[in-house]
Amino acid sequence: MERRPTKREPAESDLDRARRLDAADPLAPFRSRFVLPDPSLIYLDGNSLGRLPTASAARLQQEIQQEWAEQLIRGWNRGWYEAPERIGERIAPLIGAAPGQVVVSDSTSVNLYKLVHAALALRPDRHRIVSSTFNFPTDLYVVQGCIAAAGHRHRLDLVASEDEIHLPTEEVIAAIDEETALVTLSHVAFKSGFLHDGARISAAAREAGALILWDLSHSVGAVPVDLDGWGADMAVGCTYKYLNGGPGAPAFLYVAHAIQAACRSPIQGWFGQQAPFDFDLAYHPAPGVRRFLVGTPPVLSLAAIEPALDLHHEAGMEPIRRKSVALSEFLLDLFDRRLVPLGFSLGSPRNADHRGSHLSLRHSDAYRICRALIEEVGVLPDFRAPDHIRLGLAPLYLGFEQLHEAVVRLEQVVREDLHLRYPSARLSVT
Amino acid sequence: MERRPTKREPAESDLDRARRLDAADPLAPFRSRFVLPDPSLIYLDGNSLGRLPTASAARLQQEIQQEWAEQLIRGWNRGWYEAPERIGERIAPLIGAAPGQVVVSDSTSVNLYKLVHAALALRPDRHRIVSSTFNFPTDLYVVQGCIAAAGHRHRLDLVASEDEIHLPTEEVIAAIDEETALVTLSHVAFKSGFLHDGARISAAAREAGALILWDLSHSVGAVPVDLDGWGADMAVGCTYKYLNGGPGAPAFLYVAHAIQAACRSPIQGWFGQQAPFDFDLAYHPAPGVRRFLVGTPPVLSLAAIEPALDLHHEAGMEPIRRKSVALSEFLLDLFDRRLVPLGFSLGSPRNADHRGSHLSLRHSDAYRICRALIEEVGVLPDFRAPDHIRLGLAPLYLGFEQLHEAVVRLEQVVREDLHLRYPSARLSVT
Repeated sequence: MERRPTKREPAESDLDRARRLDAADPLAPFRSRFVLPDPSLIYLDGNSLGRLPTASAARLQQEIQQEWAEQLIRGWNRGWYEAPERIGERIAPLIGAAPGQVVVSDSTSVNLYKLVHAALALRPDRHRIVSSTFNFPTDLYVVQGCIAAAGHRHRLDLVASEDEIHLPTEEVIAAIDEETALVTLSHVAFKSGFLHDGARISAAAREAGALILWDLSHSVGAVPVDLDGWGADMAVGCTYKYLNGGPGAPAFLYVAHAIQAACRSPIQGWFGQQAPFDFDLAYHPAPGVRRFLVGTPPVLSLAAIEPALDLHHEAGMEPIRRKSVALSEFLLDLFDRRLVPLGFSLGSPRNADHRGSHLSLRHSDAYRICRALIEEVGVLPDFRAPDHIRLGLAPLYLGFEQLHEAVVRLEQVVREDLHLRYPSARLSVT
Repeated sequence: MERRPTKREPAESDLDRARRLDAADPLAPFRSRFVLPDPSLIYLDGNSLGRLPTASAARLQQEIQQEWAEQLIRGWNRGWYEAPERIGERIAPLIGAAPGQVVVSDSTSVNLYKLVHAALALRPDRHRIVSSTFNFPTDLYVVQGCIAAAGHRHRLDLVASEDEIHLPTEEVIAAIDEETALVTLSHVAFKSGFLHDGARISAAAREAGALILWDLSHSVGAVPVDLDGWGADMAVGCTYKYLNGGPGAPAFLYVAHAIQAACRSPIQGWFGQQAPFDFDLAYHPAPGVRRFLVGTPPVLSLAAIEPALDLHHEAGMEPIRRKSVALSEFLLDLFDRRLVPLGFSLGSPRNADHRGSHLSLRHSDAYRICRALIEEVGVLPDFRAPDHIRLGLAPLYLGFEQLHEAVVRLEQVVREDLHLRYPSARLSVT
C-alpha cells in the first residue's frame, strides 16, 4: 500500500501575512521619504508627533541658511508674509474645504479661543455650549476660559460616555437644543480613538440653529474630513501629528465662507489687519479668514509644514484611510489572539467606521509596560492615564511587518516581566 | 632763511574716526559670531529682524536631526517641555527681572491680549486704559479687541505727541488718574525711537493705583530695562529683533511676583494647567507665571532663541547700551554734516537718554531712497510711512566703519538720483 504524503496547508503565519500586506501596500514607498536614523525603532506615536520628512529637513536648512541669514528682512516680501494663507490652502483639500477658509496660525488652543469667542458673539441670545467628556481636556479649559471672559453667561454641558469607548451620535444630537449657541467636539477622541459622525452632528447643530466647531487634531491627515460637505461652521486642528509638521508646529483654523464676514476675532493683531503696514491706529479686520491671524508667525516652525503636506497630497486621503483601517484591523486580529491572553483589553471601538487611526490597549500595568517598550525593546507608544497604551498608526511610514514586530516585542515585555523593572509612576509625554 | 615745513594737523577723516572707534570697540569680536553670507551688505534692520547667530544655526541643526528625527516624542521629556520657562529665565536678567516671572510663549500680540485682559480683571472698578499714539499699532488693536471682548466697559485714551518725536513723561503721567485701570506703552517707539522713562512712569502708575504693562519689543537686548527696579507689573516683548531669535520667534511675557497669584489668563490652555498630563476636565492654573502659557509651543522656533541669548549675556547689557549710544552719536554727527544738506531731517530725539537703538531719518523721497538703498547699493534699512527711513543699530554685529559706509552709500543714492529709478509705492516690511 502506498503511503501518500500528508498534504500540508499550513495556516499563513502572522509574519507572512504582514509581509504579504506590505508587498501589496501602495503607500509602502512613502516610508523612504522620512528621516529614519534608527530603522529598528518602531514608532507608534505619529498621532502625537509625526516623523521628520526628508523634504522638510532640506527646506528648513534652506530657510535657515538662505532665507534668514541671507535674505534677512526681505524674507517677508518673498514668501513669509503669505505663508499662513498659502499653507492653509494646502491643508484645505485634506479637510474638505474650498479655498479661502483655512489659515495656519498660533496654537490649536489659541485658535479655539478665537473661534469659540467669535461663535458666541454670533449667537448672543443662546447660553449653552455642548461638548463631551471625550473632548481633549485643553479644549474644555479654553471653553471654560471663554465663558469666564464673557462674564459667565454660558453653561458648558458635557455629554458623557458610558463605556469610555463610544459616544453615540444620538446622545450628542439629543443634547443640542434651541438654547445651544455652540457645539464643539474633538472629531476623534484622544484616548479611545472614537470617531464622531461629522456629517450627522453638523447637520443636527445647523438644524437647531447652533454653530458647530470641530477639533480635527486627531483626525486630520489620517481620517477623511469633509467640512464643506458637512456644512460645518468652524474647525481647528494641529499640524504636528499625522501631518508631520514638526514639534509644536503652528495650528490651523477653518471658518466657513458663509459666516466669515460676521465673525470677529477677539485677539486683534496686525497680521489680521486689513493693511498692516499702513500702521493705522484703528483696527480694520482683513476681509476673509485672514482676520483670524494675530501676530508675526514663527517662520521656522511654519517652514517645515509645507513639504510635509506634499506627501499627503501625493498619497491621497482615501488610500491613507484605507491603509489606516487595514493596519488597525491587522493589529486587532493580533490583539484578539495574542494579547488578550496576556491581560490586555480593548479601549477603542471595534468597528472601524467609528475609529480614528490609533488604538488604545488597556492593561493594569500599562504605565510600566510603556516604559519597558520604550527603554527595553525599541517600541515608542504613548501612555494615557490611568491604563491606556495608545498605539498610533501613521499610514505614511508604518508597515505591517513593523506592526507585527511591535506585538512580538509587547508579548516579550509581558512574558519576560521586563516591565517590572520600572516603578508605577507617571510618564509625561504629549 | 630756512623754510620751515608747514605743520599739518589734518582733521581726522570720518572714515579714520570710524576705524579708530572700531579698533577700540570691546564688542567688535561679536560680529564673527553671526552668519554673514554677504560681508558687503550693510544690515540696518536688526531692530526688525536680528541676524542668525552661528550657534543658533548649529543648534537648529541638532534640533531637527537629533531631537525631532531621532528622539521624536521623547523630546518632550528631554528639554522641550521646560523650554518656555528655561528661555524665559535667560531673558529675565536682560530686563531686570528676578527668576520666576518670565516665560516665552505665543506672539507679542497674543501675550498682550492675555495680560491686558488679566490686568482689567484686577481693577474691575476702573474704566480707563491709558496708552499713546506712539504705541505699536498692533498693541492698540489688541487693546481695542480686549475692550470689545469685555463688553465695551473701558475707554482707551491715547496721549498724543506734538512733534511726532517726543512724548514728554509729564504728559503721560498727567493722563494717569484714579479711574485708570491700566497704562500700556511701547518702551521705545517704533518710528521715532523715543525712549520712555520706565522708572518714573511705572512709579506714577503705581501711585495712582493703576497697573503698568510695558511692550519691550523695541528695547529688549539694546536698551537696559529694569522691570523689578521700576516696580512694573507686566511686560511683553519679542525675541526676533535685537535678541536675534529668528523670524517670528515666540515672544515673552513678564508678570511681577506680587500679582501672579491673582492673575488669570483668559486663554486657558494645557501648558498653563497645573498638571497637564493628568488630563483633568477642569482647569487649574499652574502656580506661577507658567499659567500664562497656552498651547504646545513651536519647538523649532524656540530652539534658535537660546544660543542667541548667550551672546547678550556674554557681552553684557551695559557695554551693549554704551556701543548703541556711540553708534547713534556717530551717525548723528555724520547726519548733521553730510545728510542734512541732502534734504534729510531728523525723526528721532537728539538726546541719547531719550532714544532707543534706532534712528529715523526723514526725507520726502524716503520710500524710493529705501528701495534704492536695498536694490542698488547693498544697504538694508526699513521704511515707515510716510517718510521715515529707519536705521537700526544692532551693537553686536554693526561696526562704525560699516555705518560710515552706509552714509557714503546713502549720499551716493541721493547725489546720483538712483532712487528716481523706483516708483513712489509702498514697501511691505515688518
